[in-house]
Amino acid sequence: MTAWVGNDNLALLTDFYEFTMAQAYHATGASDPATFDLFVRNLPPNRRFLVAAGLEDALSGLEHFRFQPAAVDYLASLDRFTPEFLQYLSSFRFSGDVAAIPEGEVFFQGEPVIRLTAPLPEAQLVETFLLNTIGFQSMIASKAARVAIACGDRSFVDFSARRVHGADAALKAARASFIGGAAATSTSLAGQLYGVPVAGTMAHSFVLSYDSEAEAFRQFARAHPQDAVLLIDTYDTEKGARVAAEVANELTAEGIVIHGVRIDSGDLVRLGMSVRRILDHAGQSAIEIFASGDLDEWRIAEIVASGCPIDSFGVGTRLGTSSDAPNLGVVYKLVEDDGGPVMKLSSGKVTVPGRKQVWRRRDHDLLALESEGPQDGRPLLAEVMAGGTRTLDPEPLTEIRERRAESVAALPSRLHSLVGPEPPYQVVISEELSRLAERTQQQLRG
Amino acid sequence: MTAWVGNDNLALLTDFYEFTMAQAYHATGASDPATFDLFVRNLPPNRRFLVAAGLEDALSGLEHFRFQPAAVDYLASLDRFTPEFLQYLSSFRFSGDVAAIPEGEVFFQGEPVIRLTAPLPEAQLVETFLLNTIGFQSMIASKAARVAIACGDRSFVDFSARRVHGADAALKAARASFIGGAAATSTSLAGQLYGVPVAGTMAHSFVLSYDSEAEAFRQFARAHPQDAVLLIDTYDTEKGARVAAEVANELTAEGIVIHGVRIDSGDLVRLGMSVRRILDHAGQSAIEIFASGDLDEWRIAEIVASGCPIDSFGVGTRLGTSSDAPNLGVVYKLVEDDGGPVMKLSSGKVTVPGRKQVWRRRDHDLLALESEGPQDGRPLLAEVMAGGTRTLDPEPLTEIRERRAESVAALPSRLHSLVGPEPPYQVVISEELSRLAERTQQQLRG
Repeated sequence: MTAWVGNDNLALLTDFYEFTMAQAYHATGASDPATFDLFVRNLPPNRRFLVAAGLEDALSGLEHFRFQPAAVDYLASLDRFTPEFLQYLSSFRFSGDVAAIPEGEVFFQGEPVIRLTAPLPEAQLVETFLLNTIGFQSMIASKAARVAIACGDRSFVDFSARRVHGADAALKAARASFIGGAAATSTSLAGQLYGVPVAGTMAHSFVLSYDSEAEAFRQFARAHPQDAVLLIDTYDTEKGARVAAEVANELTAEGIVIHGVRIDSGDLVRLGMSVRRILDHAGQSAIEIFASGDLDEWRIAEIVASGCPIDSFGVGTRLGTSSDAPNLGVVYKLVEDDGGPVMKLSSGKVTVPGRKQVWRRRDHDLLALESEGPQDGRPLLAEVMAGGTRTLDPEPLTEIRERRAESVAALPSRLHSLVGPEPPYQVVISEELSRLAERTQQQLRG
Repeated sequence: MTAWVGNDNLALLTDFYEFTMAQAYHATGASDPATFDLFVRNLPPNRRFLVAAGLEDALSGLEHFRFQPAAVDYLASLDRFTPEFLQYLSSFRFSGDVAAIPEGEVFFQGEPVIRLTAPLPEAQLVETFLLNTIGFQSMIASKAARVAIACGDRSFVDFSARRVHGADAALKAARASFIGGAAATSTSLAGQLYGVPVAGTMAHSFVLSYDSEAEAFRQFARAHPQDAVLLIDTYDTEKGARVAAEVANELTAEGIVIHGVRIDSGDLVRLGMSVRRILDHAGQSAIEIFASGDLDEWRIAEIVASGCPIDSFGVGTRLGTSSDAPNLGVVYKLVEDDGGPVMKLSSGKVTVPGRKQVWRRRDHDLLALESEGPQDGRPLLAEVMAGGTRTLDPEPLTEIRERRAESVAALPSRLHSLVGPEPPYQVVISEELSRLAERTQQQLRG
């Protein structure tokens, strides 16, 4: 039986240690509010900035976080949990406060994308869900933003559904790619659920299933009289382009317009140029050229730099799996509890204590304590949930996408480079925060 | 609103071009049965074999593949589809036949993991779902099988939920990791839904939230009197080990047994050795050592080779994202239709035509036409669905896991190597299949 994650069983999509810890907290009555930062310790390879995404799903998930009877029964069956704790889970509601960097906004290492304050067991039980949700969508939005930079004034479409990591990834990659700059997605469900524009052409199997390429093109165009994009590389790309042009000319009499052709293999720069010539020569200069096949931001940048007249790109696997950096090291760390600021000192993993705010300035960010009050720059963390109730309404995806465009555009231009070592963007830690970190460390070591 | 994929909307988790093609097929009455192979063109980097996984979800999904009214309404709203085609979708049922390599079985490049025969539009509409489902789980099972090789007689646990690509990936990675050899998972939902054993320890936040490490250990152990695993690297690993040993000795009087300690940072080999000495010295030689932190098969192999007495490993990000090879190039290709065998000739992507069977032999596989009849060796493809109805009952996960163990063990031993270039496993194409491919190619080119 196919098992799916949904609002009804989401609360068990949780690392088992959250339950063992929560039981211990519960047993000792430790339920004072604590503050956790969700952040990325270091930017992944090749990333000069990250794009926040996934907040909408995080908030909706927090509102729906419930342990159904079946979940509680399962936990009970393990003989690890007390009846009191299981009862606590049965009536669990997330009651905390959340501040967040808005979706679409650029962020950097060490900056809390989410700052959550809740009774300790609650804060702990939602950890796995939050990391998974924010981490994946931010990773894909960040990758897509790089593809968008490479494309410049050309467009790209998310083609990743078949190669991404499971069903939820297909849906969320479409959303995050759109935020990052994709014009459309091939994932139809993302069209229905999010309103992301959908796009698609045809597969080689379609061409193979007809007696001739011309017949396949003809039948497809008749079924899609204004929108057909013909795949021309099944046998020989240049011959395919000539066949497409002939079919386009032939079908004009029927009022049919061929929108484009797609090339999915071979030397895209060379083929893009020769296909353009073939189409133009046949009087079909309005037919657009669409390219796909193992594309990413570097390959697209090369094609664009060559001047090759490809109009639009389909980007699949390497976008939807962020294949050069397939994970984002998101972490969720306790930074303050009822006893004040805390930090861990684990080798290579020291955290920065205290409740923070991030201030965006012209050429660097400031990470300061919230208690320091207003600083120069624009504060990025804003309240989105109070007492378990959302204070941020769902934002239209097009607004989030526009925020990404503006936020990326406002970065120092060296951060738009896709290659080579550039001085990284600075996240400056305020003097007060530095002193707090030093003091806390000394107390712990002392 | 969080959007989830489930049985009710799965059918729209489909590349848009499947619909555009299906409409064209439908318009021209092209509904003759066609056969598609789902296979991997080349083994990814570092992989000497792959482990089949995901079939159970594929079959269950095919049985549930329905277009709900909301999905049909959405497609109708795009003004791309005819009322007749939308009507066809409304009453869609998958009616095809499926043969598959069983879950847990090893497979190689070019071998159909799934061979599907169905009316053309049906075969096309299920493509995206099948690729996504089989590709991800097979990728993770294959990665886990390598981790299992590295572990030898030690065990490992899937810790990946927080860093994998979305919610479905967390659930399915737990399943596929278990098939590949993990002893347990931290993903509680996989325990409930699949019966995979669950395991977990504690987080740094737990230690931080108490006034002292000793107090945190004490409270945790009291809440888990037989199963506590104490995280000892929050401040200083060796000091943490001493504190754990003291607490273990102190709590003996209460009948509490500390099961293990976990190290999550630093030089694991050096710390593993010294922590073992500290525990043994304190009379706590029964306490096991558990290690985690950016582990993968290579790192584990190094630790095991060093003789370091770590008993068990937690493997997260690099397992659940298959981080060295984060995608499996699964493809789904038309190989035969009512006109006979077909193939594509696209540059670098030539396919092998015809309905095939895979024969496993002692040191190579044979890929032959099904029509060639029985060959030497063991046939891998078996019928699992006929006329849209499953003929394979769900298999217990432990049986699939055992099949993986046997299938990997039976491979030539050079394929168990995790490093260095070794001669790859040969997949021999039968003479008859070679001749068919040559003949088809000549016809197409001619």
